[in-house]
Amino acid sequence: MTLETINLNDKFSQFADVWSPKLVGELNGQHVKLVKLQGEFVWHHHETEDELFYVVQGHMRIELRDRPALQLGPGEFAIILHGVEHRPVADEETHIMLFEPAGVLNTGNVVDETLTNEVEAI
Amino acid sequence: MTLETINLNDKFSQFADVWSPKLVGELNGQHVKLVKLQGEFVWHHHETEDELFYVVQGHMRIELRDRPALQLGPGEFAIILHGVEHRPVADEETHIMLFEPAGVLNTGNVVDETLTNEVEAI
Repeated sequence: MTLETINLNDKFSQFADVWSPKLVGELNGQHVKLVKLQGEFVWHHHETEDELFYVVQGHMRIELRDRPALQLGPGEFAIILHGVEHRPVADEETHIMLFEPAGVLNTGNVVDETLTNEVEAI
Repeated sequence: MTLETINLNDKFSQFADVWSPKLVGELNGQHVKLVKLQGEFVWHHHETEDELFYVVQGHMRIELRDRPALQLGPGEFAIILHGVEHRPVADEETHIMLFEPAGVLNTGNVVDETLTNEVEAI
């Protein structure tokens, strides 16, 4: 986390696992993470933390209860406020950047044997 | 700031002024802003706030005291921690996304008649 230029594609080339956030930056108590998505995540929410999803490559949708899913492609973002139940889904391999407070668990209020993953710095 | 998809290029098409940050998102007390840059900004620092610069289009550099400038192109970011004096420069028109705490003044500890600008939501 020194004074350096971070190239997102370089970072994405360093890992292959999906649904496993990698820490690439930290500021003001917030984390910048990269994640590869493919398939359906679990429905969950975060009790206190808001979350920003920014698509770098591919397409995803964020399914929501009782309203249409948010569709996201490259250069697009959406903010999911705390308490809002959501489910990320990507039909193709999709690369996203997340902004959220340090310490957020990726599956929020849910623990899933496969999908719940600790953040690893790369 | 509702539950919606934000397309960065759509937002950039809505303004032309440079060095004038536009608010496009808010989460966890942090602001997501878009800025167009061209030319040299003022040397400044932020007393308490860290700042993330992410380049969407074009190229910029972040000049630093006593060390080489950080060079940034599309898909690259850098974090400038509070207290670090810096000067953004863009030889061509460059579009960036900023992530920083709500309330940050763009020129930090400096007030410049031309360059100091309040944030406007778009």
